[in-house]
Amino acid sequence: MGALAEKYAVLKSRLAEVMDLRHAAAVLYWDQQVCMPKGGARARGDQLATLSSLTHGRFTSPEVGELLTDLAAYERQFPYDSEEASMIRVSRRQYEQRIRVPTRLVAELTRAGTEGYAAWLAAREADDFRVFCPALERLLGLLREKADALGFAHAPLQAFLNDIEPGMALADVEALFAEVRSVLVPLVRAIASSGRTVDDAVLYQPYAARAQWEVGLDAAKLVGFDLDTRGRQDRSVHPFTIAFSADDVRITTRLAPDDVRQGLFASLHEAGHGAYCQGIPASYDRTPLGQGASGGVHESQSRLWENIVGRSLEFWQSFYPRFRRCFPGQTDGVPLERFHAAVNRVQPSPIRVEADEVTYNLHIMVRHELERAVYRGDLAVADLADAWDAKYEEYLGIRPPNHVQGILQDIHWSGHFGASFVGYTLGNIMSAQLFEAALRDVPDLRERIALGDLHPLRCWMNEHVHALGAKLTPAELIERATGARLSAAAYRTYVTGKFTDLYGL
Amino acid sequence: MGALAEKYAVLKSRLAEVMDLRHAAAVLYWDQQVCMPKGGARARGDQLATLSSLTHGRFTSPEVGELLTDLAAYERQFPYDSEEASMIRVSRRQYEQRIRVPTRLVAELTRAGTEGYAAWLAAREADDFRVFCPALERLLGLLREKADALGFAHAPLQAFLNDIEPGMALADVEALFAEVRSVLVPLVRAIASSGRTVDDAVLYQPYAARAQWEVGLDAAKLVGFDLDTRGRQDRSVHPFTIAFSADDVRITTRLAPDDVRQGLFASLHEAGHGAYCQGIPASYDRTPLGQGASGGVHESQSRLWENIVGRSLEFWQSFYPRFRRCFPGQTDGVPLERFHAAVNRVQPSPIRVEADEVTYNLHIMVRHELERAVYRGDLAVADLADAWDAKYEEYLGIRPPNHVQGILQDIHWSGHFGASFVGYTLGNIMSAQLFEAALRDVPDLRERIALGDLHPLRCWMNEHVHALGAKLTPAELIERATGARLSAAAYRTYVTGKFTDLYGL
Repeated sequence: MGALAEKYAVLKSRLAEVMDLRHAAAVLYWDQQVCMPKGGARARGDQLATLSSLTHGRFTSPEVGELLTDLAAYERQFPYDSEEASMIRVSRRQYEQRIRVPTRLVAELTRAGTEGYAAWLAAREADDFRVFCPALERLLGLLREKADALGFAHAPLQAFLNDIEPGMALADVEALFAEVRSVLVPLVRAIASSGRTVDDAVLYQPYAARAQWEVGLDAAKLVGFDLDTRGRQDRSVHPFTIAFSADDVRITTRLAPDDVRQGLFASLHEAGHGAYCQGIPASYDRTPLGQGASGGVHESQSRLWENIVGRSLEFWQSFYPRFRRCFPGQTDGVPLERFHAAVNRVQPSPIRVEADEVTYNLHIMVRHELERAVYRGDLAVADLADAWDAKYEEYLGIRPPNHVQGILQDIHWSGHFGASFVGYTLGNIMSAQLFEAALRDVPDLRERIALGDLHPLRCWMNEHVHALGAKLTPAELIERATGARLSAAAYRTYVTGKFTDLYGL
Repeated sequence: MGALAEKYAVLKSRLAEVMDLRHAAAVLYWDQQVCMPKGGARARGDQLATLSSLTHGRFTSPEVGELLTDLAAYERQFPYDSEEASMIRVSRRQYEQRIRVPTRLVAELTRAGTEGYAAWLAAREADDFRVFCPALERLLGLLREKADALGFAHAPLQAFLNDIEPGMALADVEALFAEVRSVLVPLVRAIASSGRTVDDAVLYQPYAARAQWEVGLDAAKLVGFDLDTRGRQDRSVHPFTIAFSADDVRITTRLAPDDVRQGLFASLHEAGHGAYCQGIPASYDRTPLGQGASGGVHESQSRLWENIVGRSLEFWQSFYPRFRRCFPGQTDGVPLERFHAAVNRVQPSPIRVEADEVTYNLHIMVRHELERAVYRGDLAVADLADAWDAKYEEYLGIRPPNHVQGILQDIHWSGHFGASFVGYTLGNIMSAQLFEAALRDVPDLRERIALGDLHPLRCWMNEHVHALGAKLTPAELIERATGARLSAAAYRTYVTGKFTDLYGL
């Protein structure tokens, strides 16, 4: 082995150690959300803080920096998307971000997250955003410090975006958002004034938890999420997906006794994430390539299965008979078309995670614009709640009835503030562009879905998205997979076409 | 703060970090046993190996060594059993053990454990001890190296015992064992030839899993194990207890559909461990004092609740009515006395974890004597299986029908070989001595138990055992709690008295 190849092997062993620690922390997080008795919270906070400082310290050690410098010559010997070049490039990108943040600040941010979570819970308990404000102010102070350290003093959101969507410019994101908003706001109004009412009572009846659970598992299996030996599904307050390796991926769902949508679409959504995690080559385990390309690309997979597939007529052509066998009473006299219309009903409502496909993105816009206003200094934390309600009025035509169903609904701001939500809408945009490309490559894709055969779509995604791990930036990945630059065109066509049809606009 | 007090604070922060890492590894272990899909095994092995080397490296760092040296003067300023003196003393004892073992060897032992576990499973699959031999030989080689490093070349078992039972001499353990064996072997024979037969068919009927689960939870609560906010019970192949802090303690049980003993007595046993963990002052969390005094003392708590209490007539006087309400069909026409006799039936059998209270210790003797013979060079690994069967013949009068129910039954030797089992019999001996002392302090203890009030016994154990954490050595703890040196006297009296009565000897 040459000297450089040896250094490359040393780099990989350092990265393996860092990834082991990150995955250990991930197990602790999963346990906290799914299993941990309440009393364990304090100790768990300590354990996670210790792991995060240690991981940070190991990854940003001078040795790793020197290896990355020395390996620049090695990187040039390999093609751009080879394992070797990608490993060095992606590690260097992460290293150069992380090295700027002092270990002290990492530890303080971890603590602020733990305290922020407690404050957020207390504020929800009191239904009063003011209870949460001091913790959020402290967190913001640390995050501004972090953004300064990262060297994007004038646009902290760009600094945070770099972590979530490598290589993406905030201006590009905002241009995409503006385009989507310009389509959705009038679409929501047109639907509201269409006079067309959708009867979705079928969804809101008593549904036995056990049968809901089984239907959710069925749906997750259809997506291609392996529940036998490489994954599992559990219940948690907020559904999420987490991977400890490509062969140990956990999804969670939540079941509402009188609302069958929540569990079923959570299973479809999380199984989309889960299949992505399981589809990354096992040879990337213990390396920075062994994860999704970005938050947005990850959401493209979950939203694809939840919405583009999971709310399509074709999907329900094959899945509805199965669903009816599980719930004969509830679906008695409800034909397929009525059921399909029900799961696609557009109705502005205060809660993001329960929102329909159309209004969902407007929830994201609200959050993103408030984050931007705060970082620009145009909005004080103390005024966030009022600004929240005003934005909901503007985009969705509703005012949240209280803080719990308004500004306190999401956990995100308890631990981070900035670019926390953009991935959801980017994911919607990407999912439409990817699906359009898959349709070009597999012309009978819709017919196959209608027959209950989701295999061709899964294979296409595996080949063009999953199998690449984190080698490419989101822009690179989308361009290679679809042959076109990332744009909102496919999403516009998709969402306008689908809901114009459904609502006879 | 003085210079020494400052150093003490630094030591505590270093120890806190090490304990956080150990507890993180414990969470990963628990997950592996309770939740992890099969596919996760490889990555989990990596994660645990990384954590163990890192923990070893942090704990045995020169900085910790210097702090411990410098703090000798501080230690002398405090009473022996103060938090300060105990913290320094116990940390130094562990440090001086661990510093002798090179990090490389720690990592190799972790790997050997992972490979040993796989080999053990394969051997069980094939029902052939020879499949396991190569892995055990490799493990033994590393363990001999470890014992040499620890500096007890001529008695490796002593080196390993120091880790499990601090301060205890192997000769003392063996003297206790010889005394117990001299009582039990004739007792088993006397019972066999008493002509008295015990009808325990009541235990071996179909018992619904759900009701078994509930009865187990009831029993665990009676022991004082907090299942509300500080603990939980799950199922696993081998029942065990693990703590991530005093406020997050997990026990597991296993349920057999046709054998009600297994789940119930596992719950009682593990709840005994669990109540010990929860009873350690939360102020010892993140320090080496925040754990049990030794393996033996830990077993004294589990065996106390499983056997001395859980198999007593008094316990069943209050618990049997509850049990009967859960299982009216199974217990129909079975009076209390017959049920009590059933759970105390003495019957030599090949499986340790299913053994009755009397023969149980003989299973331990077999294992301990084989370990000793191997380390002395009197027995080759290849001959272990035959030696196993011969010992069973000698002590229990039976021969295991195969390797799975013989030498391959325990998981222990897959990851360690040496002093792995002594804690179980030491625990039995200690439990009798502690119970005798509690009876002196609380004269109506038995009456209270018969009324279903286990509180006085729990409080006594909390005050004399749990509240001390790992401050004292097992010998010190037993002497302070009972006023007498550790001896087998109480256990002799207990076991002889109980079974002489039950079998009319």
